Amino acid sequence: MPEFSIAITPRFYETDALGHINNAAIAAWMEVVRMEFIASLSRADSGEAQNWILASLQIDFIAETFFGDEVTANVTEAAAGNTSLTVYCELFQSQRLTVKSKAVVVYMNSATNTPERLPDALRERLNGR
Amino acid sequence: MPEFSIAITPRFYETDALGHINNAAIAAWMEVVRMEFIASLSRADSGEAQNWILASLQIDFIAETFFGDEVTANVTEAAAGNTSLTVYCELFQSQRLTVKSKAVVVYMNSATNTPERLPDALRERLNGR
Amino acid sequence: MPEFSIAITPRFYETDALGHINNAAIAAWMEVVRMEFIASLSRADSGEAQNWILASLQIDFIAETFFGDEVTANVTEAAAGNTSLTVYCELFQSQRLTVKSKAVVVYMNSATNTPERLPDALRERLNGR
Amino acid sequence: MPEFSIAITPRFYETDALGHINNAAIAAWMEVVRMEFIASLSRADSGEAQNWILASLQIDFIAETFFGDEVTANVTEAAAGNTSLTVYCELFQSQRLTVKSKAVVVYMNSATNTPERLPDALRERLNGR
Repeated sequence: MPEFSIAITPRFYETDALGHINNAAIAAWMEVVRMEFIASLSRADSGEAQNWILASLQIDFIAETFFGDEVTANVTEAAAGNTSLTVYCELFQSQRLTVKSKAVVVYMNSATNTPERLPDALRERLNGR
Repeated sequence: MPEFSIAITPRFYETDALGHINNAAIAAWMEVVRMEFIASLSRADSGEAQNWILASLQIDFIAETFFGDEVTANVTEAAAGNTSLTVYCELFQSQRLTVKSKAVVVYMNSATNTPERLPDALRERLNGR
Repeated sequence: MPEFSIAITPRFYETDALGHINNAAIAAWMEVVRMEFIASLSRADSGEAQNWILASLQIDFIAETFFGDEVTANVTEAAAGNTSLTVYCELFQSQRLTVKSKAVVVYMNSATNTPERLPDALRERLNGR
Repeated sequence: MPEFSIAITPRFYETDALGHINNAAIAAWMEVVRMEFIASLSRADSGEAQNWILASLQIDFIAETFFGDEVTANVTEAAAGNTSLTVYCELFQSQRLTVKSKAVVVYMNSATNTPERLPDALRERLNGR
């Protein structure tokens, strides 16, 4: 199981009139987490970090997220398929679970723009974490 | 089955460096569609449109959405639970299905901030569409 | 003086915790207005609408803009320089002036990526409006 | 002259189809810088950080800002008026100046919602930096 964590500082413009972070901002944060996680798995100069597209995104909003306290984003699991990677993420704020998310990203051959088998090197790094 | 449709004009800032509309912008559009749909079901002055929170959001990205052509957002189904409403939406651009989405929103009692049974009047309007 | 006007429907996620539309959303709206205005001046298929970059943006926030009422965006003046166009815009909501903005955009030669003199045809359409 | 600097990591969704960070995202970053700067000037528990509204924003786009390299945001000057504070900011990426900005924020009495003279304590901290 990979362990990966980043901190996200909520921005004021990400709040909405209900007084908490808007759901669309949280979808945007998920891209930040996912891309940093994939970059952490990828070798520099391999281009591996560049070749992903988002196929699906599931977000469960467990509790409100607020402006003013840092958010911890943990990737709790990442499961390799043939051409896809499923990334599970949880957000915590002040020790409280606020969001659970699951994203499926597909590894693309950038020349042909078709899905491609995940590189073995990336699979190994995924297992070795 | 309710029939509800709105047009969304993609905005240039909603594109990303891959040249199409970014996934986070599409999550944001889903809020626009959902809130307009719920407003269409709600009686003016009833406050019914105000009392919803998003519990979960699922988005499947079927094809790229581009800047330059209008998007049609169709609510294809809306299923009432006890305190929740599940709203299914599809986006089309140039007759092509680009996105399928499912959102679960919960009807809240704004005084007590707890889930509340969907009003009968709203259920009737939902069935009668 | 050109006359150009579009309607903008505020989106809920564009509000912030102060209860009104966030300033960053208004900067984003300005891009929408500016690009629609320039497209209205440009001949189809001429590519004229594509070749602009934003050099500067000035926004004066006169009054709060709220979710729930349509906004009217008026381009009140557009002044052609040699390679640039200065676009003045005002936002109104419920007959109240809420925002005044001035943007300077530069016309770029897309092949050389350098500023280029505004096409005469575009100047004429600008004067003729 | 105050010296204040924060790092901003560009997010992929902040790019646009031209391949660089969109101007609206930069307007949003300016709010981040401004609010962190004001918080740095304000005493904890004084509420001083809460009482500001944006009156005007000027952004000059000097060069493109890209995804992939950290941005340094420097507040280069902050000038106190009677009820307002003018904050000058510059963004650098890879040692290159990309953005200059000037924002005027007004200090509000939150009870009466009217402009209020900047607190002396805040003026002193502003001068003492």
